[in-house]
Amino acid sequence: MSDDDLFHALESAPAGSSLAIARVLDQLRYDTRGLVPAIAQDAASGAVLMLAWMNRTAIERTLAEGYACYWSRSRNAYWRKGETSGHLQRLVELRLDCDGDAVLLRVEQTGRACHTNRPSCFYLLADGSVVRVTSDPA
Amino acid sequence: MSDDDLFHALESAPAGSSLAIARVLDQLRYDTRGLVPAIAQDAASGAVLMLAWMNRTAIERTLAEGYACYWSRSRNAYWRKGETSGHLQRLVELRLDCDGDAVLLRVEQTGRACHTNRPSCFYLLADGSVVRVTSDPA
Repeated sequence: MSDDDLFHALESAPAGSSLAIARVLDQLRYDTRGLVPAIAQDAASGAVLMLAWMNRTAIERTLAEGYACYWSRSRNAYWRKGETSGHLQRLVELRLDCDGDAVLLRVEQTGRACHTNRPSCFYLLADGSVVRVTSDPA
Repeated sequence: MSDDDLFHALESAPAGSSLAIARVLDQLRYDTRGLVPAIAQDAASGAVLMLAWMNRTAIERTLAEGYACYWSRSRNAYWRKGETSGHLQRLVELRLDCDGDAVLLRVEQTGRACHTNRPSCFYLLADGSVVRVTSDPA
């Protein structure tokens, strides 16, 4: 199996099959900036908390340190979530998707995930002809 | 309030505030291809099923038709999820995030979300030095 079809080969692999993580991270389908979208989900409640971005090093740091580390596209810098706010995300598990272009972090969230001090960043609900705010900022 | 700071203004808005949806969709932070990442979550179980991409029209079609419609980056075409497989995603609700650059679809999934016939696309778990397949293809 060449690395080109690594994700294709995994499609038919039974549960329990495994591959060296370095090889899989080599083959993720990073965008032109070297990033993949990363979803943070509350491991206990299942709530989707936020979507951010990771490069390979951010994934490796997250796994090594056990806390979510993203890449901030606005600041062009690593962003250890909660470093200034204290709203850390302890990593419960990190998953990759079938075609290697997205990351799912299941986390234990300290405090509130959103910079607006709401529990989730997804507080804007499409409701007919409007978008409605569904939670108060803290 | 200029449209430039629409999402900034919503940050401090109390629950129940609303804005015309067309105006919000105008101001989403689409990437250079006109796309934003869209997370599909099973509304009943909370499981994160997949991540795909939407342009403005895909969002509008999803809202109008009540079933998830994405933009396929590989095929460069609209992708009504389940159109060929029958694995439709009935829309329960559509949410946007705090900075207008991601979509969350809460859906009722018919059949299996992943093209490998697994319930979720996120079947690859980082486990120490390996990535492990956590579910069998159907």
